Amino acid sequence: MALVVESIAVGTELLLGQIANTNAQLLARMLAEQGLHHYFQSTVGDNRERLTQTLHLALGRSDVVVTIGGLGPTQDDLTKEVVAGVFHRGLVVHEPSWERIRGRIGAASTPNNRRQAEIPADAEVIANEVGLAPGVLLAAPYRAPGSEEALARVVICLPGPPNEFGPMVRGPVAQYLAALAHGSGRQAAIQSRSLHLAGVGESKAEHLLQDVIADLDRSGGVTLATYAKPGDVEVRLTAHAPTAEEAQALLRPVEEAVRARVGPWVYGTDGATLGGATLRVLSETGRTLAVAESCTGGELSAWLTADPGASAGFLLGAVTYGDAAKRAVAAVDAGLLAEDGAVSAAAARAMAEGVRRQVGATVGLAVTGFAGPEGGTAADPVGTVYVGLAAPEGTWDRRLTLRGDRAAVRRRAVQESLQWLRRYAVDGAAAMRPGNDG
Amino acid sequence: MALVVESIAVGTELLLGQIANTNAQLLARMLAEQGLHHYFQSTVGDNRERLTQTLHLALGRSDVVVTIGGLGPTQDDLTKEVVAGVFHRGLVVHEPSWERIRGRIGAASTPNNRRQAEIPADAEVIANEVGLAPGVLLAAPYRAPGSEEALARVVICLPGPPNEFGPMVRGPVAQYLAALAHGSGRQAAIQSRSLHLAGVGESKAEHLLQDVIADLDRSGGVTLATYAKPGDVEVRLTAHAPTAEEAQALLRPVEEAVRARVGPWVYGTDGATLGGATLRVLSETGRTLAVAESCTGGELSAWLTADPGASAGFLLGAVTYGDAAKRAVAAVDAGLLAEDGAVSAAAARAMAEGVRRQVGATVGLAVTGFAGPEGGTAADPVGTVYVGLAAPEGTWDRRLTLRGDRAAVRRRAVQESLQWLRRYAVDGAAAMRPGNDG
Repeated sequence: MALVVESIAVGTELLLGQIANTNAQLLARMLAEQGLHHYFQSTVGDNRERLTQTLHLALGRSDVVVTIGGLGPTQDDLTKEVVAGVFHRGLVVHEPSWERIRGRIGAASTPNNRRQAEIPADAEVIANEVGLAPGVLLAAPYRAPGSEEALARVVICLPGPPNEFGPMVRGPVAQYLAALAHGSGRQAAIQSRSLHLAGVGESKAEHLLQDVIADLDRSGGVTLATYAKPGDVEVRLTAHAPTAEEAQALLRPVEEAVRARVGPWVYGTDGATLGGATLRVLSETGRTLAVAESCTGGELSAWLTADPGASAGFLLGAVTYGDAAKRAVAAVDAGLLAEDGAVSAAAARAMAEGVRRQVGATVGLAVTGFAGPEGGTAADPVGTVYVGLAAPEGTWDRRLTLRGDRAAVRRRAVQESLQWLRRYAVDGAAAMRPGNDG
Repeated sequence: MALVVESIAVGTELLLGQIANTNAQLLARMLAEQGLHHYFQSTVGDNRERLTQTLHLALGRSDVVVTIGGLGPTQDDLTKEVVAGVFHRGLVVHEPSWERIRGRIGAASTPNNRRQAEIPADAEVIANEVGLAPGVLLAAPYRAPGSEEALARVVICLPGPPNEFGPMVRGPVAQYLAALAHGSGRQAAIQSRSLHLAGVGESKAEHLLQDVIADLDRSGGVTLATYAKPGDVEVRLTAHAPTAEEAQALLRPVEEAVRARVGPWVYGTDGATLGGATLRVLSETGRTLAVAESCTGGELSAWLTADPGASAGFLLGAVTYGDAAKRAVAAVDAGLLAEDGAVSAAAARAMAEGVRRQVGATVGLAVTGFAGPEGGTAADPVGTVYVGLAAPEGTWDRRLTLRGDRAAVRRRAVQESLQWLRRYAVDGAAAMRPGNDG
C-alpha cells in the first residue's frame, strides 16, 4: 500500500475567499503522479486551536501531512508553532536560514523576520530558493492525545506564496516523498510525460483518446490524465515500474498512441508554453516575428517572450494602444483608421504589415479589438477581436468573438492568435486560405 | 455570534488535482460578504466512509454544512445517500424534480437519472436552473454518534459544475442563509476596506501597524489582516456591527490610523492594481506615457493596461527585444548600444527618451536587463535590470539587482519600475534626485 498523504492549507484569506487555493491542486497533481494516496484536503484559518485540531485529525489518519502557508513573519503565522506543540517540542533558530534572511533583507530585517528562521527541534529545512521562509520537514513519532501508541509520521511545512510553493513541491518535496515511499518498501519509479494541446477542448480530446484510456485501465502501469486550462489541454502520462528505464519503456508506446489520435493539436511537451513553442517553430527555421497589439495590451508579447531564448526570433512587439502609435510604429494609414476604425479587419492587416516592415521581420502578427467592459459597436460588440497576419506569401485576417470579462477576452485573444500563428509557422500559407482558418 | 458555516467538497478529481476547487472560493466569498463565520473547508473523494466521517466532524462544529458535488447520476455520486444516512432517514423521489429531468432528457433518461431526483426525507429542493441535479436543503436535529444531545443543523447539498453551483450559491443559498441568520438573531453587518501597498514588505508594514493592531485587539469590532503577494501588500480591514452604517463608522478612524503609518506606500483601495493606479495618477493630471521594455517582454505594458480606460494615458508600449527594434522604435543610437551594451544605464535612458519622443508622450519609461537563465556579464549578472525614466524635467536611471527565476525577475522588474514611475507621478522630479531612489 502506498503512502497516504494529506494537506492542510492555513490562512484566513482562503476562508474569506480572497485567494484561490491553487497550491492544493498543484500538490494533489504531484501526489497523483507519484502514485501516492491522497484522501483529504483541509483548509483552516490563522487560528491556533483550529489548526491544532485539524493537524491532530490529519496525523491520526495519514502518514504524511503537508501544511501550506502560515510561515510568514507575522504574529498570525502559526504553523511552525502549532506543529512543534503537537509534537511536544520547542522551536529553535536555524542559523543558516537566519543568516540567509539577514543577507537578503539586511538592515530592513525586523525581529519578526527572525521567527521565519525558527524550526521545530529536530526538524530539517527544505530550501526555499525564491522567498525568505524556509520549508520544514519533521519526521517524528506522533502520539494522539490520550494515546500511548507512537505513529511514524512526517509533517512538511511549505510557504503559501505559489511562486515559492511550486518549485519546492515539484523539486525537493517530490524527491523526498519518492525516497520515503521507496525506503518504506512502498514505492516504484515514476516517470511522466506531458503533451500540451491547443485548439481542442478537453472533452473532445478525451473522446478521441477513450480507447487508449480503456486499454490503459486494462493493462495498468501507465495512467493518463487530462488537465484543462482555458484554451489549453494537457495530456499527462505517468508510468510506475521498478526502475526509471522500465517506466520510460512503458511510456513510449502510449505517447505514440496518443499522438496518433490528437497529434495535430500537440504544440509541445513537458512544460512547453504556447508562446515559446510557437516562436521556436519560427526561429528554428530562420524566420523572425514582429507583433503589434492593442486590446491585448502587451500580453501577446509577454507570452511569446516567456521562455528563454526569445530574442533570436522576436524582433519587436508594439503595444499600439492609441491611434498615434498605430500610425507611428505600425505605419497604419490615418485615413484607414478614420474610415474602418481601429478595430477592424483592415486595421489588423495594416498593423501586421506595418510592424513587419518596420523591423524587417519575416512575419507580422497584429491584434486589435474590444476587451471591454466599455467600448464596442453594434456590429462589433465587446469581445470582438481582429487578428492580422502578414508574411512573405500574403496577408490574412480573422475575426474572433470572445466571451468573458476583460482579462478573459485578452487571454483568449492571445491564445487564438498564437494558435493561428502556429498553424502558419508549421503548415505555411496553405493553412491560411479562407475556409481553413477554424 | 454569527452562524458558523463550513464546506465539504466531494470529488476524487479534486484530490487528483484534475480540477481546481473554485467553488469553495466562491462560497467563501459569499459567506464573508454575509458576515457569516467560516472556519473550515474540507475536500474528500467519492468514498462513503470518508465522506461520512467528514460530515460528522463538520456537523459537530458548525451550524450549517454546505456540500459541493457528488449529485450526479452515477454510482460514485454518494452525497445525498451519506447525508440521509447521517440523519437516519431514507431517500425519497422528489416527483417535480423527476418530471423536470424527464422533460429535459426525455428518452435518453436512464434509471440512474432517477437517483438525481432523490432527496433525503423531509428535505427541501433548491432549484437548479442550469443542470439536472436539484440542490438539497435539510434542516434537522443532528445527534453525534454515541451522543443523546440533538443539535440544530442545516445541510445544503449543491452540484459541483461551477456554472450550476455559482448561480445557486449567489441566489437561493445566499438568501436562505441571510434569512436563517436573521431569524436566529445572530446576524451582523460586515463591511470591508482594502488598502493596497507597494514598495514595502509585509513584515515591515505589520511592524509599522503594530500599535493599531494592538488597539484593535483590545477594542474589538474591527479586524486588520495583511495579505502579501510578491511586491504587493494588502491591508484589509473588516468591521462587524448591527448595521452596515455602524460598520462603516467603525472602519473610518481605523483607515485613517493605517494611512497615518503606511500612507506613502498606499497606491489604491479595494481591488486597485499597481499598473492601473499608476497610469491613473498620470492621466488624471493630463500626462501621457510611453514605455520601452526588453527583458520584461511586454509584461510592463500588460500591467499598465490591465484596467479599463488605459487608452487615454498609454500611448505606446514597445517591446524592443532586439537591437534593431531599439534603434527603430526607441531611436537608440547604434554606437551607444555597441559601446555600453543593450543592458546598461545609458541604454535605459536612451530607450526612455526615444520612446517618449517617438509618440510625443509626457513621460517615457524603459526597462532593459538580464531576466535569465542565460545571459548576463561579470559586472551585470542575471537579475540585473536598468530602468530609465524620461520626463520634461530630465532623465533618470536606476539599477536593480533582482533574484529568482526568469518569471520572478520579470515580475519584480515590472513592480519596481511601476513603483518608481508612481513616485515620479505623485511627487514629481524632486523624488527622483540621486539618493532618493530607494
